[in-house]
Amino acid sequence: MLSSIRRQLLGKPMHNKEMATEKLPKWKALAIFSSDALSSVAYGPEQIMLVLAVPGLLTYGYLGPISIVILILLAIVTTSYVQVAKANPLGGGSYAAAQKNLGEISALTAASALFADYTLTVAVSVSAGTAAITSAFPAIAKHDVIIDLLVLFALLMLINLRGVQESAKAFVLPTYSFIVGILVLIIWGVFQSFTHQTPIIPVESLARQWDFTVIFILLRAFANGCSAMTGVEAISNGVPMFKEPQVDNATATTYWMSGLLGVMFIGISFLIMHFHILPLNGVTALSQVAELTFGRNWLYYYIQITTMVVLYLAANTSYNGLPPLLSILAKDGYMPRYLADRGDRLSFSNGIILLSIVAGLLIIVYQGNTEHLISLYAIGVFISFTIAQTGMVVHWRKERTSGWIVRATVNAVGATVTGIVVLIIGITKFSYGAWLVMIFIPVMIYMLRKIRGHYQDVTEQLTMPLAEDTDLLMKDLDPTILPNSQPGKNIVIVPISGLSRIVVRTLNYANVISSDVTALHITINKEAGRSVADQWNQWNSGTQLVTLYSPYRMVIQPLIDYINKIERQKQPEDYITVLIAEFQTKKWWHRLLHNQTGLVLRTLLILHEDVIVTTVPFHLKK
Amino acid sequence: MLSSIRRQLLGKPMHNKEMATEKLPKWKALAIFSSDALSSVAYGPEQIMLVLAVPGLLTYGYLGPISIVILILLAIVTTSYVQVAKANPLGGGSYAAAQKNLGEISALTAASALFADYTLTVAVSVSAGTAAITSAFPAIAKHDVIIDLLVLFALLMLINLRGVQESAKAFVLPTYSFIVGILVLIIWGVFQSFTHQTPIIPVESLARQWDFTVIFILLRAFANGCSAMTGVEAISNGVPMFKEPQVDNATATTYWMSGLLGVMFIGISFLIMHFHILPLNGVTALSQVAELTFGRNWLYYYIQITTMVVLYLAANTSYNGLPPLLSILAKDGYMPRYLADRGDRLSFSNGIILLSIVAGLLIIVYQGNTEHLISLYAIGVFISFTIAQTGMVVHWRKERTSGWIVRATVNAVGATVTGIVVLIIGITKFSYGAWLVMIFIPVMIYMLRKIRGHYQDVTEQLTMPLAEDTDLLMKDLDPTILPNSQPGKNIVIVPISGLSRIVVRTLNYANVISSDVTALHITINKEAGRSVADQWNQWNSGTQLVTLYSPYRMVIQPLIDYINKIERQKQPEDYITVLIAEFQTKKWWHRLLHNQTGLVLRTLLILHEDVIVTTVPFHLKK
Repeated sequence: MLSSIRRQLLGKPMHNKEMATEKLPKWKALAIFSSDALSSVAYGPEQIMLVLAVPGLLTYGYLGPISIVILILLAIVTTSYVQVAKANPLGGGSYAAAQKNLGEISALTAASALFADYTLTVAVSVSAGTAAITSAFPAIAKHDVIIDLLVLFALLMLINLRGVQESAKAFVLPTYSFIVGILVLIIWGVFQSFTHQTPIIPVESLARQWDFTVIFILLRAFANGCSAMTGVEAISNGVPMFKEPQVDNATATTYWMSGLLGVMFIGISFLIMHFHILPLNGVTALSQVAELTFGRNWLYYYIQITTMVVLYLAANTSYNGLPPLLSILAKDGYMPRYLADRGDRLSFSNGIILLSIVAGLLIIVYQGNTEHLISLYAIGVFISFTIAQTGMVVHWRKERTSGWIVRATVNAVGATVTGIVVLIIGITKFSYGAWLVMIFIPVMIYMLRKIRGHYQDVTEQLTMPLAEDTDLLMKDLDPTILPNSQPGKNIVIVPISGLSRIVVRTLNYANVISSDVTALHITINKEAGRSVADQWNQWNSGTQLVTLYSPYRMVIQPLIDYINKIERQKQPEDYITVLIAEFQTKKWWHRLLHNQTGLVLRTLLILHEDVIVTTVPFHLKK
Repeated sequence: MLSSIRRQLLGKPMHNKEMATEKLPKWKALAIFSSDALSSVAYGPEQIMLVLAVPGLLTYGYLGPISIVILILLAIVTTSYVQVAKANPLGGGSYAAAQKNLGEISALTAASALFADYTLTVAVSVSAGTAAITSAFPAIAKHDVIIDLLVLFALLMLINLRGVQESAKAFVLPTYSFIVGILVLIIWGVFQSFTHQTPIIPVESLARQWDFTVIFILLRAFANGCSAMTGVEAISNGVPMFKEPQVDNATATTYWMSGLLGVMFIGISFLIMHFHILPLNGVTALSQVAELTFGRNWLYYYIQITTMVVLYLAANTSYNGLPPLLSILAKDGYMPRYLADRGDRLSFSNGIILLSIVAGLLIIVYQGNTEHLISLYAIGVFISFTIAQTGMVVHWRKERTSGWIVRATVNAVGATVTGIVVLIIGITKFSYGAWLVMIFIPVMIYMLRKIRGHYQDVTEQLTMPLAEDTDLLMKDLDPTILPNSQPGKNIVIVPISGLSRIVVRTLNYANVISSDVTALHITINKEAGRSVADQWNQWNSGTQLVTLYSPYRMVIQPLIDYINKIERQKQPEDYITVLIAEFQTKKWWHRLLHNQTGLVLRTLLILHEDVIVTTVPFHLKK
């Protein structure tokens, strides 16, 4: 029944052959890769405004200059990432680039930063998507966390567990609808601001006194605005999915994406300033802008709904990013191996579930509050930007292909600028959550290395010399691991609680697998023990019965003591097998009526003793 | 470490020989058996007052008459229970009596009623004890449920898990202190009422108009007051613990207990009327009486504290009553067998834990509200009274010893009266919780019978004919259950994921237990599968390797399909053994790094397939 529900939700299992090989034309690729970057205009400009709109300080007017600085930063990062796409035509992103060019610690730093980045992208985008729709329909605003979690688990997780194939198509229409909507909004708004009497005249508010507080606020506003730049790296990771010529198409798409992002970002910022939008509880800045521009008509709802959809899609890009990264990390031994396995729909199911759980926890802890989540956000993104570009510099120096100096310079500038941004975010947003990411990254690196250490230990203990090496290594080896080494005896112990069909069945099996069988009866009552022994003799099976009296009424401890005694007496190559007879009941509640000694015994023996544990089932017919 | 904490809390395990054989003199027995009955004066009179103090209806004055009716009822029940003690010198209570004299359904009704009664005694007594102390110290009143649960789990449960021996001593001082305190309170209060100007003169309030509402209220007040009679049966269940002459001592102690209960009950009721006590939130009626009599001095605190202690001890009497009853039910097959086992301190640990959990749930559901819990309470008690006494009537008729007619008449009167009380409680308190008990009892009876049915089925399937019957039954038997029947082949399947030391070790063992060994490799990738097969041939162990390609990347399903195929081909007497190699990691978190395929496979195979599952451990050294 469970498996049928699973089939309904996830679809039929898919054959290895069904692995997707579709190559994307530019216009499709733009839709798929840019939803993360473009959707951030829904919260980026607002995040700057939130910091600047401090009452008493005349900083609001700096929204313009800060937006322009971010535009310049975007241009630098874009140029730099075009080089990354050229150097890594196989994709792989900053972890792969750092692994190849910079070494383990940088690679793991990038991996940890990306982990933080991807999980936060999901949490931020889902929260912001819900904020877009609850701005339009305030009645459902109080259920925002529940909506977030529904979208996360019932929509994103399920769609991704079903597999990527279906998601590609889903991107095109919403992303282009969103782009068109925002562009119309900007054009209409700007046109109004030049021709009509506008609702509110922006206040000129540029502090002239450059004290520490003002500078700090401006830098923090800038740090907040950097959240708009997340997702710019997406294309450079996805080069292998482009149609030939891959690198050229990826480059063109990157420029298109950044161009659109720049226009939309500066346009929304302009309109926020123009309408002098201030923070309003429960209503996003973009919603205020749309309402003031269009009025509350269908165009307003169109903006809110496409914004919601594109933000949820942006969350989806992390599902295309983190699970493959985790699978690469798992293959390199830094993450549990099972994160590398593809599920029955060919998606990396374990990674998808992990991402959903972590993002869900973030949403619950931060109560779906976009502003607080974004405080954690930008620093991870810019750390991975910096590492990826530094890696590129090393890469170009190694390759020294024609024009390498120009390319290395571009990446060096990019790395320096993004490095400075990391510092700015780290300092100005330290107490707003950046400290958490700064603790998280080293802890994660420690963990990744610990995991790899364990796998290396295991491999060392398991690897077997093949035929040609046998002579060489023979003397170092535990004799029991060599093929067909002199086989030991098999000492079989059968714990019994009395004489019954289940015991007879178990003993019959015991006699098949060994000629050294002992039945062991642990009695808490001398008389009862004697009566079992009498029955045994009467039955006369030929198997030896040992009766142990347990005056403290324990059953498992005397058995373990007995096994330890045998263990000390046996030859090293001998095996000890404990046969546990176990009822399999017909109905689930029947289980509650039988003590679970067999189960406890099996678990304890398997975990702690060097014995082989065999379960002989006895299926009850009713 | 866990086991050391356990030792600290519970003490050393105790030897079978340490089973208590102490016989109690009357004065000790009175302390032990009467705490339940006597402590009920702390809430019994109050429960009558709560119903009568309805504004607008002149019923308050009937507190006196109702108390006198309850006194008469007490006399009848006491006389009747003295006969029960005489008939059952081995103890056992109403379940045993009904089992012997009335048949299964009556016995199970009694058992179910007693189960409700004992668990409610714990919940009511603990809540009332806490109410006694929070009446004196209102600051802690808001934590009452937490105090209840602490007393229940950290005090009562632990003490009883440590064993009964220690609890006997603990009863004497608190019970006698409580008796002395309450008697002093009554004497002092009555003396004041005759000599001093009393604080409040009782209002004469006897409704003259006997309409339906008034009668209903009076009956409901009576039903509430019956809660004071719980625990009267305790001595008749504990006859074997008395010094010789057991029956005479038990009889005398019963009269003493009922006499004390009667005096205390009527005394407190008188004082409540005298002071015209009304319900006061957070303060018990007894606390109000004590404060008005003594003032708020040490005598007041003495009363509150001894009341609290004796109520907690009353809860403890259920711990002496229910676990042995459960153990008898378990031996008769009506309850899970493990409830019959004595733990390492010789107490019925599983029953003690079950009682604590059920009482804890009752306290949580009813938020430690004594009044609501008492609504559920009295009906169960009087059902078991009625059954026990009806059983006695049958008993005397069977025995026909001298004077049996008198005895049977006494019990018949008792049964009739308590039967009428059951009806009164059932009708007047139906909507106050009696309906819940009336549903609970049949459900519980159904459950008890279902459990016994299962055990009978199991016994039938397990019982083995002994030597003399073999010929007779031979032809009906599954051939594999006979000793030394023609042994089958052992078909061994070893699932492997590649070639490693752990596989070699497992195969070595496989070759010891059988000559028919197949290694089974399930590959999700044809190439990888071929490479494993090549390695296998190079290693050349002589064991057959079967490679199955699983294009849908499932591992467990193809294995189960393979097993089912073998199952169809084999002879009925052949065994199929699946050998599962399993890592045992050094640190707990290493487990998370290995997929749990082995564990899942083992569980699925044991639960659903007719195969023998063997776990060969590989203990990692680091």
